[in-house]
Amino acid sequence: MSEIIFQRLALIGIGLIGGSIALAARRAGVVGHVAVSTRSVDTLARANELNLGDSFHVDPVEAVRDADCVILCIPVGAVGAATATIAGALKPGAIISDVGSVKASVVAQMKPHLPEGVQFVPAHPVAGTEYSGPDAAFASLFDNRWCILTPPPGTDPQAVETLAVFWRKLGANVETMTPEHHDLVLAITSHVPHLIAYNIVGTAADLETVTESEVMKFSAGGFRDFTRIAASDPTMWRDVFLNNREAVLEMLGRFNEDLAALQRAIRWGDGDTLFNLFTRTRAIRRGIIAAGQETAVADFGRPHESSAAAKEED
Amino acid sequence: MSEIIFQRLALIGIGLIGGSIALAARRAGVVGHVAVSTRSVDTLARANELNLGDSFHVDPVEAVRDADCVILCIPVGAVGAATATIAGALKPGAIISDVGSVKASVVAQMKPHLPEGVQFVPAHPVAGTEYSGPDAAFASLFDNRWCILTPPPGTDPQAVETLAVFWRKLGANVETMTPEHHDLVLAITSHVPHLIAYNIVGTAADLETVTESEVMKFSAGGFRDFTRIAASDPTMWRDVFLNNREAVLEMLGRFNEDLAALQRAIRWGDGDTLFNLFTRTRAIRRGIIAAGQETAVADFGRPHESSAAAKEED
Repeated sequence: MSEIIFQRLALIGIGLIGGSIALAARRAGVVGHVAVSTRSVDTLARANELNLGDSFHVDPVEAVRDADCVILCIPVGAVGAATATIAGALKPGAIISDVGSVKASVVAQMKPHLPEGVQFVPAHPVAGTEYSGPDAAFASLFDNRWCILTPPPGTDPQAVETLAVFWRKLGANVETMTPEHHDLVLAITSHVPHLIAYNIVGTAADLETVTESEVMKFSAGGFRDFTRIAASDPTMWRDVFLNNREAVLEMLGRFNEDLAALQRAIRWGDGDTLFNLFTRTRAIRRGIIAAGQETAVADFGRPHESSAAAKEED
Repeated sequence: MSEIIFQRLALIGIGLIGGSIALAARRAGVVGHVAVSTRSVDTLARANELNLGDSFHVDPVEAVRDADCVILCIPVGAVGAATATIAGALKPGAIISDVGSVKASVVAQMKPHLPEGVQFVPAHPVAGTEYSGPDAAFASLFDNRWCILTPPPGTDPQAVETLAVFWRKLGANVETMTPEHHDLVLAITSHVPHLIAYNIVGTAADLETVTESEVMKFSAGGFRDFTRIAASDPTMWRDVFLNNREAVLEMLGRFNEDLAALQRAIRWGDGDTLFNLFTRTRAIRRGIIAAGQETAVADFGRPHESSAAAKEED
């Protein structure tokens, strides 16, 4: 039996991440009451139907009142305004956190609004799927994924440790780093990958010489892999790019430089340059599998049954 | 009970594709004898252990003698020399085919060597995994995938139809197009995706500010999706780029142009441009799922058990 870490947890926003926190926290038995708030009345009603909390509030001020921990689970472009709204209602000593994919901008947006005595511990669980909304939530989303904490100077180390324990109980591994380093790491491991995935799907859709139907039929050659992250939530990802501009542009510059070298190797028939890179990249995947962040099953373990089923429907 | 389509099928090369053809053909009951040849004595012995054929030959001339159908299952850079070696031993009326990811170059390399009366039907099954070699082969690899035939003018339509029936019996859907159109379609649905996947994995590995260990730990943010196709066979993919230069450079030019526009939108804070693209791309994935070429299960259906198991090993 786990001990209660937060008697009252308030979740502002109840989509894939907020909903999965609610389910994982209940699975772990580490929360007393989960208060849920979201702006959309429909989403709030749906979260209630899905039993993602104990109380449901259109007004975030009601949700955070008396909460021991408040987690903003909303797009990073919205955290400043949300913090301004709830700041006056936060309980002294409460932990306030978030789940945003960008951290320096989140700190800059939230910190000015926070009263003395509230413990600010920004967090980013590096986990998700291509689906969004409360229906996409599931309790095991954070199992063996990493959650990065980026506490600003002056945060009570005990509050950081409490939130770290909470995330570990949700199944995650926890690491602490500066917001700036986080933003650089995530630019290459998440933001630029999303950008080029969105980009190639757009490029393919715009061709005149190849039809969209052909793109779809022959996508098993590799293209379809990119469409998964290119189906991620548009608002969330717009906000990520607008709020991590410097790091994304830096990493994108390097990506472009390297791609230009490959382009030149293709144009001039330099097979050795291609072969050497293509050999080196295999080791990285093996490392990711060894680190428990990826499956070794061929083709991501895509279910072959579903293909067969799809065929029968033809 | 299926009818035998080829009394003797010769497979030159017995890796992922060749091995899977052997297994799928046996599953379908459409071949009498499968003769296997490959240059590597070790691979040939392994294919024998795995029971991927009925006879095994170091000399491809022995394998193709009296064969009704010969399929080259080797990198596209090697098909010219292989065809020159076996051409004199081909049975009159035999179908000769391949499985290369590039078609115009394959036609240009193979056609000059082929004797009169042999039926040349180049083919490309758009299917695969990130693994290679005979151990990676499995019978359902082609189920509901597409196989593209690109017969040159003068090929007997009956031979084209026979090979189409054969591929359908292996589980595939079949489409016919010109080699040039094939190369354009595959440049966008397969070749450029592989190139940018290889490229971003290389970029990430070369950073000084982010460690390789960090790249691996936080890869669940999107990066890991790219590592799958970046772990594909280096020789095969070097040959693809060297043999489909024009179409790859054309599609890569468009990709770069589109990426420059996104880069500019990020630099200037143009959220609408980002949001509009990110919304549009979701429809393409839905289309691919509807076309039976992708699973709708979240996260490709990556097994969560394996993550849990990996955690226990920590």
